[in-house]
Amino acid sequence: MTVKARGAHAADQPIVAIDIARRAPGPRDVQIEIAYCGICHSDLHTVRGEWAGTLYPCVPGHEIVGEVSAVGNEVEGFKLGDIVGVGCIVGSCKQCSACDEGLEQYCERGMVGTYNGATADAPGHTLGGYSQRIVVDRDFVVHVRHPREQLAAVAPLLCAGITTYSPLRHWKVGPGSKVGIVGIGGLGHMGVKIAHAMGAHVVAFTTSESKRQAAHELGADEVVISRDAAQMKAHRGSFDFILNTVAASHDLDAYTSLLKRDGTLCLVGVPEHAHPSPYVGNLIFKRRAIAGSMIGGIAETQEMLDFCAQHGIVADIEMICADDIETAYERMLKSDVKYRFVIDAATM
Amino acid sequence: MTVKARGAHAADQPIVAIDIARRAPGPRDVQIEIAYCGICHSDLHTVRGEWAGTLYPCVPGHEIVGEVSAVGNEVEGFKLGDIVGVGCIVGSCKQCSACDEGLEQYCERGMVGTYNGATADAPGHTLGGYSQRIVVDRDFVVHVRHPREQLAAVAPLLCAGITTYSPLRHWKVGPGSKVGIVGIGGLGHMGVKIAHAMGAHVVAFTTSESKRQAAHELGADEVVISRDAAQMKAHRGSFDFILNTVAASHDLDAYTSLLKRDGTLCLVGVPEHAHPSPYVGNLIFKRRAIAGSMIGGIAETQEMLDFCAQHGIVADIEMICADDIETAYERMLKSDVKYRFVIDAATM
Repeated sequence: MTVKARGAHAADQPIVAIDIARRAPGPRDVQIEIAYCGICHSDLHTVRGEWAGTLYPCVPGHEIVGEVSAVGNEVEGFKLGDIVGVGCIVGSCKQCSACDEGLEQYCERGMVGTYNGATADAPGHTLGGYSQRIVVDRDFVVHVRHPREQLAAVAPLLCAGITTYSPLRHWKVGPGSKVGIVGIGGLGHMGVKIAHAMGAHVVAFTTSESKRQAAHELGADEVVISRDAAQMKAHRGSFDFILNTVAASHDLDAYTSLLKRDGTLCLVGVPEHAHPSPYVGNLIFKRRAIAGSMIGGIAETQEMLDFCAQHGIVADIEMICADDIETAYERMLKSDVKYRFVIDAATM
Repeated sequence: MTVKARGAHAADQPIVAIDIARRAPGPRDVQIEIAYCGICHSDLHTVRGEWAGTLYPCVPGHEIVGEVSAVGNEVEGFKLGDIVGVGCIVGSCKQCSACDEGLEQYCERGMVGTYNGATADAPGHTLGGYSQRIVVDRDFVVHVRHPREQLAAVAPLLCAGITTYSPLRHWKVGPGSKVGIVGIGGLGHMGVKIAHAMGAHVVAFTTSESKRQAAHELGADEVVISRDAAQMKAHRGSFDFILNTVAASHDLDAYTSLLKRDGTLCLVGVPEHAHPSPYVGNLIFKRRAIAGSMIGGIAETQEMLDFCAQHGIVADIEMICADDIETAYERMLKSDVKYRFVIDAATM
């Protein structure tokens, strides 16, 4: 079946309206009428060929919410009319130790991304959520239990939400934890909300004094202007965990020095140019660690969505029409968004 | 009381015979007649002023074994004639959370080093184990339960042994673990022996084919020549833990890529020149970490010594006279030692 979508035919071509094919749902598939799709910075990197390996036509989008319109005859747990989500993953080997542990994002044979991943479907690579409809293996579909009127703002949870929730859970953030969130953008604003809901004492780090009030409103107990050495120094050695959402190259020592003994600085973004080499003395003298984390597994994504529904957490979004994706990209590059663009798929 | 020692009067002066004062044992002190003292690379860095802050005269040495010759009247657990050890630490605040947890090396008010640390004793900084006698707070003295004829080879356990034992224990190395030890020198050769005794599958990494046989004899199950890309690649994604004992600047990505998901590369040495900035994608895509670790606490040092006694583990050493310390330093700089020099204090 043919479906309207938005994508690019080449790295140097703009996002345009295109028709794509979706497979007929197989016995284990869920067919979803997409309602909303968030715009992630990865979408831009991929569609513009800034990372190696983009296949064209490229239809980005991995923050998808919509309504089930068909299910295969072996599908249990999903039925017509269910509100569901699809995130960054639509396939994995289901046999390796990572998949066994519900960590499909670390599948040892390689997870299948929601776009630009390997598939038998035409055109040979997966096409994402900037489209009217998607057909996905039931094992990679999650239930959305938020109120219907919040659905647009739920979409970004599928990537920005789980990317911050997973490391916060993995490193056992909770009541009594002092947690830093570096960067108050698409990822960071979710990190602040989620860490706050987990019961932690949350400190937001931003380069911009202008974000102070907003960060408090998101749930930050304290806000530190990271360019202010005195403010930074006041927090030395005090953090259990710092989640660093800033992908641009920057000084990591400023953050490792803020960790307690045995604390971890977790990175979730790969910078285009390497960070300055971190001072390993900061690690050795307090048994600290610099670690990384990538999105989250499917079971954990469901857990995150349920946690967010329970705590009334959604993303702060700006809704756009499908025709405005390129404009949204340009604004995103200038950090001119609070905090996530979401495409209204009805405008596709 | 005056005691013979070896030390330097300035950064550009050689190690010479000097007389130093030791305090009379206080009520909580243990006085030790030093039998042997190992030579650690830190000794050379400190005495030659290669790290900031060396105070002179400088008497290095923090791998000390000897016999108790006096105890204060509040000392329990040590008596005349006991064979004991002193490592890198002779004091800490005993009140912070690190000290409470037996992690005196991470004391929040700063541990007192066995040399170049703050003390009320003359000359105002601590003087180490290149001497005939030392007086130490009982809380920083450990029992040595190895056979007497092994004492010289026990000395390096007090720094090289605990520096490798502590991270191996902290990161839960044991049967079923695949562990890498990078660098087969003073620290690394202890790491191989201890990890082997812990029941792990041990892979030794060395730049030198000539160390292959020796590494196997130390207990390595496999030996990888780290300059050989094919040998390295064969181990990709397979290690639970890698202990990197090489302080010289080198490519850490070669090791992070060998870790399993959730694996840790632990550094124990601060390089003079920073390592090339590690590729953070290696961390993010498998939730790996780069961490650091510094020596070990006193209770853990006792545990390590007892573990080594039980498993018949000592260092491989070359015994030298006190007059040969400078010669030993020059050979150490050329890695011409298997694997640790130990000073016979009887030659002091």
